[in-house]
Amino acid sequence: MNKTLLTDLYQLTMDAAYADNGKDDTATFELFVRKLPANWGYYIANGIEEAIDYITTIKADTAELEKLRERNILPESYIEQLKSFKFEGDVHALKEGTPFFPEEPVMRVTAKRSQAQFIETTLLNIINFQTMIATKANRVVNAAREDKGREAKIVDFGLRRAQGEDAGMKGARAAYIAGAAGTSNVKAGLEYGLPIVGTHAHSFVMSFPSELEAFRAYTKTFPDNATLLIDTYDTVEGAQNAAIVAKELEFQGHRLGAVRLDSGDLADLSKKVRRLLDDEGLQYVRIVASNDLNENKIAELVSRGAPIDAYGVGTEMITAKPVAAIPGVYKIVEDNDGGKMKHSTGKKSHPGKHQVYRMEKRGAYTHDVIALEGESIGGKPLLEQVIKDGARVRPIPTLNETREHVRTEVAKFHHSVRDIGSYRPYDVKESDGLQRLTAKLTAKHLYTPEELALSYA
Amino acid sequence: MNKTLLTDLYQLTMDAAYADNGKDDTATFELFVRKLPANWGYYIANGIEEAIDYITTIKADTAELEKLRERNILPESYIEQLKSFKFEGDVHALKEGTPFFPEEPVMRVTAKRSQAQFIETTLLNIINFQTMIATKANRVVNAAREDKGREAKIVDFGLRRAQGEDAGMKGARAAYIAGAAGTSNVKAGLEYGLPIVGTHAHSFVMSFPSELEAFRAYTKTFPDNATLLIDTYDTVEGAQNAAIVAKELEFQGHRLGAVRLDSGDLADLSKKVRRLLDDEGLQYVRIVASNDLNENKIAELVSRGAPIDAYGVGTEMITAKPVAAIPGVYKIVEDNDGGKMKHSTGKKSHPGKHQVYRMEKRGAYTHDVIALEGESIGGKPLLEQVIKDGARVRPIPTLNETREHVRTEVAKFHHSVRDIGSYRPYDVKESDGLQRLTAKLTAKHLYTPEELALSYA
Repeated sequence: MNKTLLTDLYQLTMDAAYADNGKDDTATFELFVRKLPANWGYYIANGIEEAIDYITTIKADTAELEKLRERNILPESYIEQLKSFKFEGDVHALKEGTPFFPEEPVMRVTAKRSQAQFIETTLLNIINFQTMIATKANRVVNAAREDKGREAKIVDFGLRRAQGEDAGMKGARAAYIAGAAGTSNVKAGLEYGLPIVGTHAHSFVMSFPSELEAFRAYTKTFPDNATLLIDTYDTVEGAQNAAIVAKELEFQGHRLGAVRLDSGDLADLSKKVRRLLDDEGLQYVRIVASNDLNENKIAELVSRGAPIDAYGVGTEMITAKPVAAIPGVYKIVEDNDGGKMKHSTGKKSHPGKHQVYRMEKRGAYTHDVIALEGESIGGKPLLEQVIKDGARVRPIPTLNETREHVRTEVAKFHHSVRDIGSYRPYDVKESDGLQRLTAKLTAKHLYTPEELALSYA
Repeated sequence: MNKTLLTDLYQLTMDAAYADNGKDDTATFELFVRKLPANWGYYIANGIEEAIDYITTIKADTAELEKLRERNILPESYIEQLKSFKFEGDVHALKEGTPFFPEEPVMRVTAKRSQAQFIETTLLNIINFQTMIATKANRVVNAAREDKGREAKIVDFGLRRAQGEDAGMKGARAAYIAGAAGTSNVKAGLEYGLPIVGTHAHSFVMSFPSELEAFRAYTKTFPDNATLLIDTYDTVEGAQNAAIVAKELEFQGHRLGAVRLDSGDLADLSKKVRRLLDDEGLQYVRIVASNDLNENKIAELVSRGAPIDAYGVGTEMITAKPVAAIPGVYKIVEDNDGGKMKHSTGKKSHPGKHQVYRMEKRGAYTHDVIALEGESIGGKPLLEQVIKDGARVRPIPTLNETREHVRTEVAKFHHSVRDIGSYRPYDVKESDGLQRLTAKLTAKHLYTPEELALSYA
């Protein structure tokens, strides 16, 4: 999809007015997220690379522009200007997969005002969703890891409940970089090179005279490593039928892979099923569980000692339900007149161009500092230049590199930061320089220039 | 996007197993939604036409199939079969935009088992999301209509928080058929022919030395019908500046369109701003409000008498937050062996092929009856044939026809059904025939064939 006009009309009206008023100085905008959803302790940056691709390839489609011209909502001269619009500025961004916190810039854009403003909506559309799903999925993955003895796998089953086709695709990808083992979404698996997994539905079982016959039919086609869904009628009877088929497969030199539970008390049933399978010598047959799972339900199953090897997670991971959206915004922070900040009730922003420094002590992160660019702070700077004069300057990481980056970075935070329930807020400080600039601009807003001159006298 | 492989792997494994086991009789599946989210009284069917387009144009992409073959997860013979896969069955569906209730079939698919099964995930991906957003948007539109004296407009501002690009596009479309007046999404507006609306952002105001200068710059380019955002610094001062500019525009023979409030107590501020504008003789300048709105906040503003003419609704309408997903499912209901039903805990389904009849009395709907196909019930049958032998047989309605259908149909329900807060559940009955079939199949499942023979003796 050509995303050039996948934007809010006001980006175009503002640009038209900037052009008309000869206002095309250089400005800096930053993309950040205002706050964390309840019980979330961090975010995982995602969508950065797609955003870079978008910025560096903006080019309006001629037919679309023609349709836009016919609407008569923008000056003719601006439509002409849009024909040759391209982004020529600089962008700094977090590395894809980096954990970050509210108010920390995820991306910093410096360009002609018209160009920096133009990309706002599209950037937010890309980064808000993918960051939300990567974070949600990382929480789900962490929940399944709590038990030290067993690290259960998480698999994305969300396509049917995803908010459209793009959400199904990018959601599967986001879940994978966040640590999911694979997806049931065939197209996403092929497109992004993710492991594709799948079992069968209840309708398959109901299509045969008995469950046992259905299991035999399925394993006739997939004799090795199949997963049988055992709860169509009764889960324990289903496990017995699966055990019969597993023994028949053994006799033919094959092995059943797993059984899947999709209803009822999953902790209780998984224990019964595990015992039944073990009693039959089928220790190798794994247990997969699904049924409207989320990180809290998985944590509870883990704490109850449910012997579940993999969780299929659908609705709540692919939509981040009940969060559904994170408050990512894109704000002007500086132009030729200096630092800019907004004073609307409850919607303050940090003025100036920023860098974020992450402080580490003996392999663990202790705190971050949001500083003005150029301040000498120490620690690891998180924003890297990714676009220079409109061209990409950082190579695209592979998905597996990003996945590994997520894993190693998240591990360096105190476990309370990534706790899914009662996390401890991570410490994000503002540098002295940033505090001074904020105070100066706040004073400038509260007082007239004359009063201000007096107060600074 | 070619959606043929935008599906769960298990649709393919099941089909491969059906083929391998010579199981290709005719089966019927129905798509329905299990229940309503808290406080929702109905659903608005949406995505039906896109689903019909999808079903009638399924054709696997050769390069994608090649990639799939290389994964070695499906039998070679099945990959060959996929090359020529097409849907050749019959489909009945609700008319796009029709209100419906839990358990009522939205779509009924009768085809060779492999074909009917194949389309499950993609249908759900299309219909679940679009139905959810159309319903959410209809609730928002209804909330703004509660005040008899004033019918405020609703506008979609959601793109930046939508769950991906497809959600931004289809969400804008769904909101429009549900009664929204337009969208800020330029691409969606052009693609679907929706009114496109937009103002400017806080950053525009912050790009000029003063708010007044920013307003003058904006209206220089858009002298007629512009909307000025007045809360960057202080809303009442912003209204004063907007009034100054409006008077200047009048002098030049132009008219300001509206002012927009985006923070603070919107009821209180809108009253102050209305008074200020009226005092200046600017009765024609409308007030637009935004800021994380939803149907409940709008209902409260309306009940507080806020003189707001239009609401820009973003995050919560485009994502249906906190609902985020509705539990639409697709279940086998009949095959050559007769009616089918699932017995898993809490996941029952109605057996048999169904039709839904809607009963009307003096222009108002009284109740629905879910009946077996062919039962003589009376009332208006809601499912119409849309695909016959794989080809579309119902013309595609225009968006405005669908929008009008939503408006007139929703109006025929008792207001308590569409109340956004404490709705009264609408009465959906099961026909005698359906009750008898359900009882028979439940008994068959609970007892052995011998016991059943005795109990029916």
